[in-house]
Amino acid sequence: MYLPSHHEEKDLRVLHALIQTHPLGAWVTLDDDGFTANHIPFILDASRGQHGTLRAHVARANPVWQTINVAAASLVIFQGSQTYITPNWYPTKQLNGKVVPTWNYTVVHAHGKAKIIHDREWLLQTITDLTKQHESGRPAPWKVSDAPAEFIDRLVSAIVGIEIPITHIVGKWKVSQDEAMADRLGTAEALAKLGDANSLAMSGLVSSRVD
Amino acid sequence: MYLPSHHEEKDLRVLHALIQTHPLGAWVTLDDDGFTANHIPFILDASRGQHGTLRAHVARANPVWQTINVAAASLVIFQGSQTYITPNWYPTKQLNGKVVPTWNYTVVHAHGKAKIIHDREWLLQTITDLTKQHESGRPAPWKVSDAPAEFIDRLVSAIVGIEIPITHIVGKWKVSQDEAMADRLGTAEALAKLGDANSLAMSGLVSSRVD
Repeated sequence: MYLPSHHEEKDLRVLHALIQTHPLGAWVTLDDDGFTANHIPFILDASRGQHGTLRAHVARANPVWQTINVAAASLVIFQGSQTYITPNWYPTKQLNGKVVPTWNYTVVHAHGKAKIIHDREWLLQTITDLTKQHESGRPAPWKVSDAPAEFIDRLVSAIVGIEIPITHIVGKWKVSQDEAMADRLGTAEALAKLGDANSLAMSGLVSSRVD
Repeated sequence: MYLPSHHEEKDLRVLHALIQTHPLGAWVTLDDDGFTANHIPFILDASRGQHGTLRAHVARANPVWQTINVAAASLVIFQGSQTYITPNWYPTKQLNGKVVPTWNYTVVHAHGKAKIIHDREWLLQTITDLTKQHESGRPAPWKVSDAPAEFIDRLVSAIVGIEIPITHIVGKWKVSQDEAMADRLGTAEALAKLGDANSLAMSGLVSSRVD
């Protein structure tokens, strides 16, 4: 990924937080035919390994666990907030007109060799942990043990585990850092006025780089 | 991508519509070191070629246009709505407990060999078309001609064009089709109640497959 230094987010805690709030990853794997991309929710063990470890599962019917070249690093793309930025939000437009549109986004690329896992205990633990992450905070959180044991047992037979110890991780926070300060403030304000969750999130991201 | 038939969206107009409403693509390219992913907004010429043609531009400073293996197909991933689905929304949970969480999402994979373009007219046309797409419908749409010509001229020198005639396109609409009808209706209703834009979009997608 092209990553100018002013767009690089280096704080591992910030990168991990994006993975945790946007867990549906695009998992790109090398195979004999080139590469393949699958979309699966990941859980992050933030403190396992130097950069954290990702866990997930795919359907056993998904050929990826057989076709993947496990000797090569795979890539998981986690996409955060993103939105079009109109130059109409820039005071510089009135000043001299030297402005153009852009697109803001945050994204994490996590690289590492994937291990394919068939161990039933590991699989049960992973679906339990995924459930805990997504059910916590909900009214009456659903638990894996709410389902009949033999039903879960059958499902575990139908999935295959993926574990990726992250060996390299980068974050691109393209959130107006290369614009004039007045234009950054104008962007943050205009996005805040739009008021929807995505615009508010991007407004906060733009503001967080204003100092 | 693993694509069970009940999750496949085959209507090219529906796939094109997702690209147009979610234009920030993850462009995955093969190179000597494996693959690279960059995130850029694409414009779709829906009627050029059998499956449409994608256009975009990258910074000239982005090495991708020099490192890409143009003889190999690249992939552009367009991600639509996506959300966690709790089994608490399923009436089947009360009936027999045989339910588990899942993740719903819509995604388009567009494959094709990328051409690298340096022609200034093409570049100017592409930024003009991108602008039109994103500014139309806004109050006082910004136009490329609003900026000084020499300023735009300098920017055009700093970008490189990408054109991808789509040779293969698939859509995965994982929107509860494999759940019991009552659970699909329960999911659509619960998402509608949440009321945010993303949940409403997914509620509509789940409902659209109920027949």
